[in-house]
Amino acid sequence: MPRIVQKFGGTSVADVERIRHVAQRVKREVDAGNEVAVVVSAMAGETDRLDRLVREMVAQPDAREYDVVASTGEQVSAALTALALQEIGISARSWLGWQVPLRTDNSHSCAQIKDIERVELDAQLAAGGVPVMAGFQGISPEGRITTLGRGGSDISAVAVAAAIDADRCDIYTDVDGVYTADPRIVAKARKLDKITYEEMLELAAQGAKVLQTRSVRIAMSYGVPLQVLSSFNDRPGTLVVDEDQIVEQETVSGIAYSRDDAKITVTNIADRPGVAAHLFGPLAEAEVNVDMIVQNVSRESGATDLTFTVPKGELERTLAVLETVKAGLGFQSIESDSNVVKISVIGVGMQSHAGVAQQMFSALAEKRINIQVISTSDIKISVLVAEEYTELALRALHTAYGLDVE
Amino acid sequence: MPRIVQKFGGTSVADVERIRHVAQRVKREVDAGNEVAVVVSAMAGETDRLDRLVREMVAQPDAREYDVVASTGEQVSAALTALALQEIGISARSWLGWQVPLRTDNSHSCAQIKDIERVELDAQLAAGGVPVMAGFQGISPEGRITTLGRGGSDISAVAVAAAIDADRCDIYTDVDGVYTADPRIVAKARKLDKITYEEMLELAAQGAKVLQTRSVRIAMSYGVPLQVLSSFNDRPGTLVVDEDQIVEQETVSGIAYSRDDAKITVTNIADRPGVAAHLFGPLAEAEVNVDMIVQNVSRESGATDLTFTVPKGELERTLAVLETVKAGLGFQSIESDSNVVKISVIGVGMQSHAGVAQQMFSALAEKRINIQVISTSDIKISVLVAEEYTELALRALHTAYGLDVE
Repeated sequence: MPRIVQKFGGTSVADVERIRHVAQRVKREVDAGNEVAVVVSAMAGETDRLDRLVREMVAQPDAREYDVVASTGEQVSAALTALALQEIGISARSWLGWQVPLRTDNSHSCAQIKDIERVELDAQLAAGGVPVMAGFQGISPEGRITTLGRGGSDISAVAVAAAIDADRCDIYTDVDGVYTADPRIVAKARKLDKITYEEMLELAAQGAKVLQTRSVRIAMSYGVPLQVLSSFNDRPGTLVVDEDQIVEQETVSGIAYSRDDAKITVTNIADRPGVAAHLFGPLAEAEVNVDMIVQNVSRESGATDLTFTVPKGELERTLAVLETVKAGLGFQSIESDSNVVKISVIGVGMQSHAGVAQQMFSALAEKRINIQVISTSDIKISVLVAEEYTELALRALHTAYGLDVE
Repeated sequence: MPRIVQKFGGTSVADVERIRHVAQRVKREVDAGNEVAVVVSAMAGETDRLDRLVREMVAQPDAREYDVVASTGEQVSAALTALALQEIGISARSWLGWQVPLRTDNSHSCAQIKDIERVELDAQLAAGGVPVMAGFQGISPEGRITTLGRGGSDISAVAVAAAIDADRCDIYTDVDGVYTADPRIVAKARKLDKITYEEMLELAAQGAKVLQTRSVRIAMSYGVPLQVLSSFNDRPGTLVVDEDQIVEQETVSGIAYSRDDAKITVTNIADRPGVAAHLFGPLAEAEVNVDMIVQNVSRESGATDLTFTVPKGELERTLAVLETVKAGLGFQSIESDSNVVKISVIGVGMQSHAGVAQQMFSALAEKRINIQVISTSDIKISVLVAEEYTELALRALHTAYGLDVE
C-alpha cells in the first residue's frame, strides 16, 4: 500500500475551519488507498505569540525552557487535527516529539534529528490509523523537549517520511508550488511541474521562501520525493525529485532573490599572500557568514579592494571585527551598503550549456543595471545589484531565459 | 533542611509581571534556607481558552486529545516561571508530568495519581535547585498525557509534597486563607488561623471554593500540612492540620453554602420495605449523586413522601430515570425545585457539644426561614432552605455561633 506523509503549514491549520478542511484532504488520501501519516505546524501566529510571551519574560531565554513553551503550538494543532479526523470517521491520534520518540541532539532551538522510532507509527499505519505528529519538536538525550529551528515542521515531515519509508512527502502550504520566480513580482512566472533536489536547494539557499534548505537536504539524502502544493486549492503542485526523473531539463529552472545581504568593501588593502586569511579568519571566528567575495585587480601601488557580502543581521558585528584588525592589515577604509539585492539564476541544465552567464550579463546591461559582485557555482550564477533594480532585473532575466508563461 | 512545596494558582501566574512576583516569593523561601519545589497552574483564562478551542472543533472530544491540548497551559506557565527564577539567580528548571514522571491511571481528564518518581526531584533539590512542575498533568500507563480534573494543580502539589516528604505545602491563591464564611456575603467573616483536615474536607464538600476535596483528602492521608494563603499580600494564611495540633477547638469552625443542588419530591409512594432501594437503585446505576434524603412519616393510607437532592446538572437525567420507574413503584407525582440552597455548619467541636443543631434551628426560625430538608454527620449539620434566604441565613448563623469578628 502506498505510504504518504502529508505536512500542513501554519496557514493550513490557522483555525478550526481550516483544520476541518485539512482533515478532508487527509481523508481523500486514505480513501484513495494510501497509508497516511500527518505532520502539522502550529496554528498561524501561535509561534510568534509564544515567542513574544517568552521574550517579555526574559530577553535572552534559556533555550531549554524556550523550547518547552514554543513546542506547545504544534502540540495543540496536532491534537486538534486528530480530533477533526476522528470527527469524520478516521482513526487518528496525536504524537508529540517525545512520544514517537523523535530523538535529537542537545542543540535546543536548532536541534538536529538523530533518529526516529518507527515501530509504533508502523503499527498504527498498518491498522489503518493516521498518526498526527506535532512538527518542529523532538526529545534530547536528557529527555527534554527540543525544537528544530526555522522550517522545523518541514524537517520533521521529511525525516519522518524517510524513517517510515514513505513513497512521497507532500508539503501543503499557501502557494501552489515552486515557481520560476516570485509571482508577486514576476507576473509571468510559471509553476514548475518538477525540479531537482539540487536546484530546489539552491533556490532555497538563494532566497526562495517556499522550502528551507535543511528539509530539502534531508529529502535529497534519503531520496524522499517531495511535493509542494497548496492546501487552498486542488491544483497539482511541484515535485522535487532526482535529476534522472526529469526528462526535458531546462537550462534555467528558476530565479531567486534575496534582500538579506549587505555589501562591505575594504579599500586599499595590500595585495600580498595571506591578507585574505588575516581578514576572513577573525570573521569566521566571530561566526560571520561571508557569502560572495570579489577582489579587484591590483593597482600599481600594490594595493587592492576586497568586496564581500554578509547577512544584514551580522553587518554591525562584522564592522566591529574589521575595526579591530584594521591596524594590523593597514587598509584605508571600510565601506558598507545595505541597499543591495542578490539575484540568482539556477538550473542543473547550465552545466551543459555555455553562455548562460553571458545571457545574464547582457540582459542586465540592456536595462542599464550595474553588476557589483558576481559569484557562480556549477548550477547557479548570482549577481549583486542595487536594491532598487530588484523587480526590473527579475523580470528582465525571466524573459531573457525564456521562462515567461505564454 | 526544611522542604516546602509552593503551589501558585492561575491568578498568581496570570501574566509576566505576576510570574516575576511569584519568583520573588520562591526566592524568599530559598533565601530563608528551605528546599523549595514549585507547582503552577495555567495562566488565568488559558485553560478556558484551550477548552473553547477544543469544543469549537468537536462537541464531545476524545478525552486523550483533550488532555494533550489542556496540558499546554501549565506547560507554558511552568517554563515561564523557571525562566523568571533563573532571571533572579535561582537555579530552576521546568518539569512536565511525563518528565517527572507523575504516573496516573487511564482516566483521561479526571485521572488518579498512581505514583510520583522522586529521584530526579530530590537530586535537583539537594543541589540547591528549584524544580518547577506543571500542575494538573501526568502520564498514563500507555505513555499519553493525562489531566487530573478540577483542582488538578492543587492535587499535583499535595501529591508531590507527599512524594518528596515535604514539611509543608503552601497553596497560593487569590484569597487570604480559609474564612468562617464567604466574606463576600458575611462581612464579619473571620480568617481561620488553623483548621482540621476533616473540617476543611467538609467545608470543601459543602461548597467552600478555596480548596477541592481531592487535594485535602490526599493531604490528610499522607499527613501533609497545608497552608492556604494569598500571593497578593504577605499576611499569614490558614494552616490545615491534624486535630491534635489545634489546642482550642471552636464548636463551629465555618459555615458553607452551595447553590448547586436541586430538590426532588416523590409524593404518595407506598411506605413498605424495599421501596427506597427500588427508587435509588436505578439512580445509582445512572450515576446520579443523591445527597440529602428525607422520608416523611407514613400517612394513614400507608403512603409517604420522599424528598432528596441531586446536583442541578443531573436534575434532568434524574427526572427521566424517575419517569421510567414510576409505573413499577406506583407513586403519585414528581416535584422538583432548583431554587434551593444548602447551608452547612461544620466543626469537629460539635461532637462534644450538645445543642449545636438546636442553635441552628432557632437562629433560622427567628428569621422565619423554613427548613426543607436536614442532614447531619458527626462534624456537620446541613439544611436546605429557599435560595432567596442564602445571605440572611448565613449572616444569622454566623452571629448565632459567635463567629463574627469584633
